[in-house]
Amino acid sequence: MPAPPSGSRSDAAYHGRVTDYATNLAGIRAALDRIAPHVHRTPVLTSRTMDERASDDGVSRELFFKCENLQRIGAFKIRGAMNAVLKLSDETAKRGVVTHSSGNHAQALALAARIRGITAHIVMPTNAPEVKRQAVRGYGGIVVPCEPTQKSREETAARIAAETGATLVPPYDHADVIEGQGTIAIELFEQVPDLDAVIVPLGGGGMTSGIAIAYRELSPTTRVIGAEPALASDAFESRQSGAIVGQKAALTIADGLRTSLGALTFPVVRDLVSDVVLVDEDAIVQCTKLVFERMKLVIEPSAGVSVAVAIGRGHAKLPREAKRVGVILCGGNVDLDALPWIARSA
Amino acid sequence: MPAPPSGSRSDAAYHGRVTDYATNLAGIRAALDRIAPHVHRTPVLTSRTMDERASDDGVSRELFFKCENLQRIGAFKIRGAMNAVLKLSDETAKRGVVTHSSGNHAQALALAARIRGITAHIVMPTNAPEVKRQAVRGYGGIVVPCEPTQKSREETAARIAAETGATLVPPYDHADVIEGQGTIAIELFEQVPDLDAVIVPLGGGGMTSGIAIAYRELSPTTRVIGAEPALASDAFESRQSGAIVGQKAALTIADGLRTSLGALTFPVVRDLVSDVVLVDEDAIVQCTKLVFERMKLVIEPSAGVSVAVAIGRGHAKLPREAKRVGVILCGGNVDLDALPWIARSA
Repeated sequence: MPAPPSGSRSDAAYHGRVTDYATNLAGIRAALDRIAPHVHRTPVLTSRTMDERASDDGVSRELFFKCENLQRIGAFKIRGAMNAVLKLSDETAKRGVVTHSSGNHAQALALAARIRGITAHIVMPTNAPEVKRQAVRGYGGIVVPCEPTQKSREETAARIAAETGATLVPPYDHADVIEGQGTIAIELFEQVPDLDAVIVPLGGGGMTSGIAIAYRELSPTTRVIGAEPALASDAFESRQSGAIVGQKAALTIADGLRTSLGALTFPVVRDLVSDVVLVDEDAIVQCTKLVFERMKLVIEPSAGVSVAVAIGRGHAKLPREAKRVGVILCGGNVDLDALPWIARSA
Repeated sequence: MPAPPSGSRSDAAYHGRVTDYATNLAGIRAALDRIAPHVHRTPVLTSRTMDERASDDGVSRELFFKCENLQRIGAFKIRGAMNAVLKLSDETAKRGVVTHSSGNHAQALALAARIRGITAHIVMPTNAPEVKRQAVRGYGGIVVPCEPTQKSREETAARIAAETGATLVPPYDHADVIEGQGTIAIELFEQVPDLDAVIVPLGGGGMTSGIAIAYRELSPTTRVIGAEPALASDAFESRQSGAIVGQKAALTIADGLRTSLGALTFPVVRDLVSDVVLVDEDAIVQCTKLVFERMKLVIEPSAGVSVAVAIGRGHAKLPREAKRVGVILCGGNVDLDALPWIARSA
């Protein structure tokens, strides 16, 4: 099923399907009430320079940057992990949680578990950087080594779950996680109610799904646009083919966006996202650096992907009607000793 | 004259001298009204990680970071330059302004002049980095080359002033500039009214003076503490000797703090600053990186100096009574292709 025409989310898609997806606005509102004591309401920042860069062909644009890089653990992932952990019954919670991840979700689950006072087992391949293991341990998580294969990761996590009774909390294809990430949209809507579009970095689709599900009820005329690396174009291809296309070798520098859509996120990305715009690696790196330079914010390359779409550096331009545009800066966890533009110039 | 004992700004120092310095709170309030349409009211950010680092010996501290790195031109300097330019009469203003600087004041004066619609001549040595010339031109300033000596800089600026009638706007030792920088204090006091101390990066003393003058009337019990590189310790030494000690070879990486106190700023730093704390180069670099890492903010090393004092990495600890502490992040203009910790590890 192809995506609805850009900007005209049809009545058929909007009405009568509110409960067809992983969650809905009521669920996301409940998630925000649940997690609010433990996560930051992140600020929205603006920049004249970035507005100028985003304006073209006689269209003046204003960009509103939702700063999830200033979130706890340095990325939005704490929202979904916190929601999932808080929804567990006391009985279930006391047996702990488990996941396999070497990214931001690993730190997020470790911190969420510590806040609830339970154990988090984080399965990480033996070749993961030591700094990532340390970050998880810093939040009180137990690092469980595995072989660096998807099979070993999944088997190890399943074994831990079987042995300990810990609940598996996957990084994105899970209703509670999607619900948690969707809380970004409620805050952004309260902070800037009249956006024409919101640009979301698109990887596994957890954040994109949560935001798209929230906006269809909060403000159905606001377009939700996915920003995806051209070197990790599974969502773009999945929408074209009408079925999930798995990620091939994802060599993009935007390491948060290398994952494939899942069974829960694909239908949302298919139906409720107005467009997916691809971005080349050079543009990702340049736009990441531009935000450091001109906005004085540390962001990771995954956030740079949404910035690139906002300032017309993606494969497609923004629609002319998109004048007030939200841009999700999803995180700021980047290796400061090997920033991408420095690695590139070497 | 030695500094008053730490934390006990005496009644004698407070009463009856309000007009003895370059300006006073009324002047600073008027400056804020004047410049507010043109500068940002910068946010105050907090960080649990930084609070933990600042707490020691059983003292729990909360830090409040005033983000002048998010200010226009990426540094607080636009406040003073804008105030000075706006205070010129129409008659004087139309002949333009001139300064000699290769730092943030150069960009600030260029932008302030553009906002008023007048010409800014910026005298810069021929060996200044091309990127700094471009930045000034980007704000519409005219770059006037000179020999890389203090004598040539001053003579060139004087010649421009004589030829064009342009008004010299110095970077810190000027009442209008001090007044403009002092507006930071009014905002910070409104944002966090009950601070025990405010830590200010101390170079030529313009910002420190403005903030200290404002706080003596806003909240006389709030200590103003100067943070100074040990490799540019002229203010520390000037306070000890009771007279201005010029900066010797200032080799600190904190390039914004290499200047010496001036005739207007010295008396304020002597009388109204409770302490000046020196910071070694290693601590400056590590604390600058720490803010990138944990707060996701791009700051310049000059801002890292105040962070170092806040988290106990200076030559002296904060007083135990200083529990709620403001930290001025003065700017974020740093060369992203040569970040200090990367240069150091090479």
